[in-house]
Amino acid sequence: MTARSSGPMFDKLALIGIGLIGGSIALDARKRGLANKIVAATRSAETAATANRLKLADHCGTDLAAACQDADLVIVCTPVGACGAAAQAIAPVLKPGCIVSDVGSVKQAVIADMAPHIPKGVHFVPAHPVAGTEYSGPEAAILDLFQDRWCILTPLPDGDPAAADRLEAFWKALGSEVNRLDPANHDRILAITSHLPHLIAYTIVGTADDLGGHLNSEVLKYAAGGFRDFTRIASSDPTMWRDVFLNNREAVLEVLQRFQEDLFYLQRAIRWGEGDKLFELFNRTREIRRALIHLHQA
Amino acid sequence: MTARSSGPMFDKLALIGIGLIGGSIALDARKRGLANKIVAATRSAETAATANRLKLADHCGTDLAAACQDADLVIVCTPVGACGAAAQAIAPVLKPGCIVSDVGSVKQAVIADMAPHIPKGVHFVPAHPVAGTEYSGPEAAILDLFQDRWCILTPLPDGDPAAADRLEAFWKALGSEVNRLDPANHDRILAITSHLPHLIAYTIVGTADDLGGHLNSEVLKYAAGGFRDFTRIASSDPTMWRDVFLNNREAVLEVLQRFQEDLFYLQRAIRWGEGDKLFELFNRTREIRRALIHLHQA
Repeated sequence: MTARSSGPMFDKLALIGIGLIGGSIALDARKRGLANKIVAATRSAETAATANRLKLADHCGTDLAAACQDADLVIVCTPVGACGAAAQAIAPVLKPGCIVSDVGSVKQAVIADMAPHIPKGVHFVPAHPVAGTEYSGPEAAILDLFQDRWCILTPLPDGDPAAADRLEAFWKALGSEVNRLDPANHDRILAITSHLPHLIAYTIVGTADDLGGHLNSEVLKYAAGGFRDFTRIASSDPTMWRDVFLNNREAVLEVLQRFQEDLFYLQRAIRWGEGDKLFELFNRTREIRRALIHLHQA
Repeated sequence: MTARSSGPMFDKLALIGIGLIGGSIALDARKRGLANKIVAATRSAETAATANRLKLADHCGTDLAAACQDADLVIVCTPVGACGAAAQAIAPVLKPGCIVSDVGSVKQAVIADMAPHIPKGVHFVPAHPVAGTEYSGPEAAILDLFQDRWCILTPLPDGDPAAADRLEAFWKALGSEVNRLDPANHDRILAITSHLPHLIAYTIVGTADDLGGHLNSEVLKYAAGGFRDFTRIASSDPTMWRDVFLNNREAVLEVLQRFQEDLFYLQRAIRWGEGDKLFELFNRTREIRRALIHLHQA
């Protein structure tokens, strides 16, 4: 569990994408001295300018390939839907032995999109730091975002074990607990713990907004206990989340179907006044919270 | 907006039910010197003993009527489903001029249950402090729970205006902002801002739990961003919430129907890969959050 802190782990770290996640990795890696050089690149000149103003990396440009020249570790921190194109853009300059990783909330689709572009001799180790806030962009970058959070690695079966170990050490140095999962299993678990809750939050805030008329301002006014949490979740980055749902379609549709069945069960219980069915569930979910707190995750 | 702070507003305050809400009212009223005597009663001897050990009120007994003897303000702080029986139990001892109120999250059903029992000369002013935590029982009582939160009064058309004004002054003295709504309107607004979010949170936590097998511990382990908030909401008091859904049935079923339609719309968009529909909603809900923050409620 103890993180290495003596000397940089990598000579050059390149970050493709410099928003909330990329920017926070840059800040954290510099603070902890994990790389001699930290270079970033993003397609948006405006975003690059902001990142440079905030001094997130040593330098942030708009040429993805140039940033990866001589890099020892490249982390693609774009929305999931842009990972494939990013891999394609940087592939020609990746040096042998370089580790390429990502931070995507979906793993199977990202692997399918990125892996074909990774040159022989370059080590692709997919990863997902389970951390973030509802803010996005370079201004959202903060120190210690990954401290005490999980980072899930989904190494490829034919990947280099030493590269996975080095990436694991990097994330541990950022303060994360690292675990390894099969990509399909990752996508199923995240579908229920993260993707579905976000979809629900987006939906309910939209439903409330649509109630329209005078109710609208009243809805906002009394938005307490419950709705307020949902509006926070539903203010997360639209591009990132659109990509998540499009790229984890099967797993999201599967848990959505189960959720709908369960919701109809409660809807029917309310309609028929079956209080015991409601109480039974409400009592059970309370126990789950206790289990979570016991796991120090809440 | 300034609260009266000079001298007690009421000689004797009686609280029927001494959990999170009743206990917090007791603590706050004493701290602010709003009543000379604060007496509580609850049907459970165990709860009464806890309340006495914590010194929430001057005294807490188990005889509801005895607690209300000579009271100037009685606030029924039981779950919504128990308000009618509480009103019936205390009715014989209520003195003329006494104000009877409640704290229920549903107003039409509570009014229908309580109003028939209120004697002539006693003033019934229904109220709903929009405040709380996911904890319950006397141990959950905390000071300043109502500070900067809304309290919604739903006075009856034939009620005494002076009594409503006195209750409003009481809640303002507890630090709340007070607003008045028609009971039906209150129930519709709360159905979308509070009741539906709670139902959804209960459902999704149950769905996750049901995924079963090895997924279960993994679900708990990686319960971050999204699910964690839901487990907190879904750990709220089961009895209170069962009563809310049974007693605000029509409004909850109405918003639930709208929510289901909206969710199916997104489900279909995911299935057909219609990213623009997802992005449009996700972008819109982000604006709603900004409006909320602007209203200083977030």
